[in-house]
Amino acid sequence: MRIVVDAMGGDLAPDAAALGALDAAEKLGVQVVLVGRGEQILACLKRHGIETLPQGVEIAHAEDVVDMHDDPASVVKTRKESSMVVGLRMLADGQGDAFVSAGSTGALLSAATLIVKRVRGIRRAAMGPLIPTKTGGRTVLIDCGANAECTPEFLLQFAFMGSYYAQKTLAVERPRVALLNIGAEDTKGGALQKQTYALLQKANDAGYINFAGNIEARDVPLGGADVVVADGFSGNVLLKGIEGTALFMASLVKKIFMRNFFTKLAGLVCKQGIAKLKGMLDYRETGGTLLLGITKPVVKAHGSSDRLAMFHSIRQAAEAVEAGVAQDLAQNIDKMTVPKELDHVSGT
Amino acid sequence: MRIVVDAMGGDLAPDAAALGALDAAEKLGVQVVLVGRGEQILACLKRHGIETLPQGVEIAHAEDVVDMHDDPASVVKTRKESSMVVGLRMLADGQGDAFVSAGSTGALLSAATLIVKRVRGIRRAAMGPLIPTKTGGRTVLIDCGANAECTPEFLLQFAFMGSYYAQKTLAVERPRVALLNIGAEDTKGGALQKQTYALLQKANDAGYINFAGNIEARDVPLGGADVVVADGFSGNVLLKGIEGTALFMASLVKKIFMRNFFTKLAGLVCKQGIAKLKGMLDYRETGGTLLLGITKPVVKAHGSSDRLAMFHSIRQAAEAVEAGVAQDLAQNIDKMTVPKELDHVSGT
Repeated sequence: MRIVVDAMGGDLAPDAAALGALDAAEKLGVQVVLVGRGEQILACLKRHGIETLPQGVEIAHAEDVVDMHDDPASVVKTRKESSMVVGLRMLADGQGDAFVSAGSTGALLSAATLIVKRVRGIRRAAMGPLIPTKTGGRTVLIDCGANAECTPEFLLQFAFMGSYYAQKTLAVERPRVALLNIGAEDTKGGALQKQTYALLQKANDAGYINFAGNIEARDVPLGGADVVVADGFSGNVLLKGIEGTALFMASLVKKIFMRNFFTKLAGLVCKQGIAKLKGMLDYRETGGTLLLGITKPVVKAHGSSDRLAMFHSIRQAAEAVEAGVAQDLAQNIDKMTVPKELDHVSGT
Repeated sequence: MRIVVDAMGGDLAPDAAALGALDAAEKLGVQVVLVGRGEQILACLKRHGIETLPQGVEIAHAEDVVDMHDDPASVVKTRKESSMVVGLRMLADGQGDAFVSAGSTGALLSAATLIVKRVRGIRRAAMGPLIPTKTGGRTVLIDCGANAECTPEFLLQFAFMGSYYAQKTLAVERPRVALLNIGAEDTKGGALQKQTYALLQKANDAGYINFAGNIEARDVPLGGADVVVADGFSGNVLLKGIEGTALFMASLVKKIFMRNFFTKLAGLVCKQGIAKLKGMLDYRETGGTLLLGITKPVVKAHGSSDRLAMFHSIRQAAEAVEAGVAQDLAQNIDKMTVPKELDHVSGT
């Protein structure tokens, strides 16, 4: 297996990507191609005492870099020689099985759609991060920012994509798919939710997915579903709201132990439990976010990814290749169409 | 000041309301009218050793009770003699200055709009709960569930309502008003966000509000704004997402101390800090949620409110009466209209 990695994306480029790639080649036995400015990558490796490229690691030179201020929709044209565009082209050409980048989310999504293409019949690619939950498991939240405005058909397809992904990655046989809403009853929400509810119910009745009804945001971190389907706007609000609350709560926990000498001692006694809590909040071990609906796996790593985070994003990409979600989607695309009576709401 | 309280709303009725009202009359020096089944309220007080109604507390009999399964829009017709409808009618008739209920949110919103009416010119009443933040302050999140589908004009009005409310209740001179969005740039979000952004910017330039731009959900619990403006759907998702994450994190904190004998001892050492964390998560001391845009203060108390929570909701109602937000709104309604060029998106 061959993973193409954008060496120049993210705050800690190229070090994080280069060293994370080395770790992946060594520990996972995958081949990694680092795409970016060759001399910078080599200089970085040298700084870390590595004089020759280890086995399984290659460099593919790309002169340019996508900037966070570039217009996402036009990087394919304006940044033809960037590490992101060159890497995605390699993926599309069969020179790799997956692509990982810590660069601009918008640019990655747009370029992946244009270069690697969506699965035939899939209307929109979506982002499906894994959220840790109280039950000790993880939940796929799809979409969470790729598509601010959605139709019921997009959400129906997100449900299928999330369900296949959960089956393969979380090893849940019949993932409970729920629709993010502001109440449990099927009359809740706006037109988008009501119409999507009807579509998901039909898909459930046909045995295609295991639809568990609406879910309120409160029950998502508590583990109420395996897959949470949302338009990109509210999904993003939920994801970021969870992040911010976790940070806030972590600061409160820190205060518990920093009050005085005795509470600091208590902190030492509790250090295992504290480490476990920190581990749950550490996105670095979760990996990045898979773009679902693209013909080949593309993983968006966190912008501030370090060596460890890049390693886990590459691991996640390798797992996605093995899972073969794109194939599942292609084979089942007929089940994801919208019945005629709802057609007026499904186009954009 | 006279606060009308729905004695029959919520899971712990009538005990929570009756006892909370007694506490409020005693500690705040306000008059309280308990609306509901007289004999049940008296029997409840008797159970708690209270034989005669204390000074400042009255009972207004209402035979019926709004049920959680009633259609919210029709309770005014179908439950004419319910404690909620009778209480709101008393408020409208000038027999009280504010109304508090732990009953159904939808029914309360609908009945308050029909009976007590919206401030002239206000398109929609909104719910504006106060969220504790990392900076130790609180943020008004408006709307968070009353209006699933919104127009830019609704959101403009929410911004004004939230800003007056924050000024009066949080004692912030120039509240930082921000628009909930999926990115900081003014090009982010859907049509609703882009058009609202333009309206809020104009209101800022005219000196009406202090618009701080877009805010991502992550920065809300971190204290990034004093007022967060959102459509009811995404506001509800954020509010409930914060709740669920806080519950999840609290369970993780508990685990830290429950590992073994020594960590339990450590928990004793840290009990002050733990109590402080618990206090921040305890909605009971925050009070309920004020419905903004109604001509008189109406407070929705949490459905599971106990005596303490009802006391604080009554306190909040009393503070809202003193703040006089409705008057501010009425005087400034001209500033909250939408310019002609955006008129096509402002109707419903």
